[in-house]
Amino acid sequence: MDFKEELKKYQEIINSELDKYFLEGDVPEKILNESMRYSLLAGGKRLRPILMFATYKLFDDDFSTCMTHAVALEMVHNCSLIHDDLPGIDNDDFRHGKPTNHKQFNEATAILAGDGLLNGSYILLSEDLLNETDDYMLYVKRKLFNEYAVAIDEMIAGEYVDTEYEQKDITEEMLEFIHTHKTGALLRYPVRVGAMLGKASDEELESLTSYAEKIGLAFQIKDDILSEEGDEKVLGKPVGNDREMGKATYVSKYGLEGAKVELKKTIDSAKDDLKAFGEKAEFLIALAEYIGNRNK
Amino acid sequence: MDFKEELKKYQEIINSELDKYFLEGDVPEKILNESMRYSLLAGGKRLRPILMFATYKLFDDDFSTCMTHAVALEMVHNCSLIHDDLPGIDNDDFRHGKPTNHKQFNEATAILAGDGLLNGSYILLSEDLLNETDDYMLYVKRKLFNEYAVAIDEMIAGEYVDTEYEQKDITEEMLEFIHTHKTGALLRYPVRVGAMLGKASDEELESLTSYAEKIGLAFQIKDDILSEEGDEKVLGKPVGNDREMGKATYVSKYGLEGAKVELKKTIDSAKDDLKAFGEKAEFLIALAEYIGNRNK
Repeated sequence: MDFKEELKKYQEIINSELDKYFLEGDVPEKILNESMRYSLLAGGKRLRPILMFATYKLFDDDFSTCMTHAVALEMVHNCSLIHDDLPGIDNDDFRHGKPTNHKQFNEATAILAGDGLLNGSYILLSEDLLNETDDYMLYVKRKLFNEYAVAIDEMIAGEYVDTEYEQKDITEEMLEFIHTHKTGALLRYPVRVGAMLGKASDEELESLTSYAEKIGLAFQIKDDILSEEGDEKVLGKPVGNDREMGKATYVSKYGLEGAKVELKKTIDSAKDDLKAFGEKAEFLIALAEYIGNRNK
Repeated sequence: MDFKEELKKYQEIINSELDKYFLEGDVPEKILNESMRYSLLAGGKRLRPILMFATYKLFDDDFSTCMTHAVALEMVHNCSLIHDDLPGIDNDDFRHGKPTNHKQFNEATAILAGDGLLNGSYILLSEDLLNETDDYMLYVKRKLFNEYAVAIDEMIAGEYVDTEYEQKDITEEMLEFIHTHKTGALLRYPVRVGAMLGKASDEELESLTSYAEKIGLAFQIKDDILSEEGDEKVLGKPVGNDREMGKATYVSKYGLEGAKVELKKTIDSAKDDLKAFGEKAEFLIALAEYIGNRNK
């Protein structure tokens, strides 16, 4: 398996799907649609859909089964980016090297585009649930709808606490709360979607969930490391801001080298969770390593 | 029937239910929860739950069947109020005579409280859907989940277009789009919930939907009239602002007296839609009149 090729393939699958959304040009709210499309297609690693597809592939390879859920996740992920970037929260001008939504459009549009993407993801889930004819899958999807809403609730709580504790000295417990909630919940969820739509056994679901939680933690540690020593041009956002703002990060807690040790430990442990899947888990193992090695 | 008594009874039912939410005091995001509770309990006419209960009562009087949906609607309605009040949109300092969410807390909290309320309403729907054991009701609730998401999408589009067309001369078509979407969609929806959970026939659902659409229109016309000639102290918000800002309203389109004629016509027609329900519709008829006569 060529990891980069595989990664690119997954990215192309989700990107070509996302390209079908918010095309309505002749409606009164067309600029709102444009702004949602702008953010949705502005780039990004598409890590959440990739996690979903790769997990689903352990069981089946007809991705149409989870496509709606993958699009929904990218929508809500972009809602959180748009709202976090707002002047009232992080006040960021650039995202993925492009003007943030409120810079490209305006603040009112960005607030409502975030709302529209969050809510739009539920339109997709509701359609998927309405069209489901198989009783077992209907039950699974009702469960997933609930897990999705709870995961987003955790994300919002994590973002809130992150914002509130900026510039304050925080405990390790609080730092962990922020990251398991703000980033972790929506990295854990796609793995569970892939497993549950793939009809994983309880044991398989449990070990994949554990893998996902560690991936989430590793992702955040790496994010904090990149914010400290990454390349501004590659990252597409300023470096050193977190420290200047006195923001709580794994680097501020463990120091730069300590954070790197923590990162390696976490990734090794995530890989261990996949043992039962043998060679089939090759991509998910490489993905764990990729999260630790990425430079943006 | 004493209309005011009945109205108060419905308000008490929903208020005592809303009082059970966002009580978690010992969690990291407790101030976010406080802010959602603040807005949810800050007052308001509770028109959406009242429409739901009163419609449901045409068929059955066990309100526990629609309680989750009533709470969800108040949550999303308050999300829209919090976000519309933000400095980036309407920049309002007061709502229901109290400081708006971002004034009482701060902007970041208000953005995330809106997100939390919108998403929280879906947590409620997902739990309700997960707990449903009856096949027919499960189908009805899947349909309602979809209608709910679409109605909110319409509300967001309406708010966007309203914001965009402030200070611009707009066509009658655009004014109608704004109001059927911004206010109308979420007044229509609770009537449909009440009817569908009450197992209304297709014909009944159709005439109740028509009633709701007219109620929505009447509500907006009356809102515009109050914004022009209401009592600031009673309204709890400034009067004359819409005109000063050059905002498109039914008053700016038809003139104050023209708007009043339009209002009466709309309410009479809404009452006609209820004929088939006879005396049972007494409250809904009185509610239509109340919407036309209210002073806040």
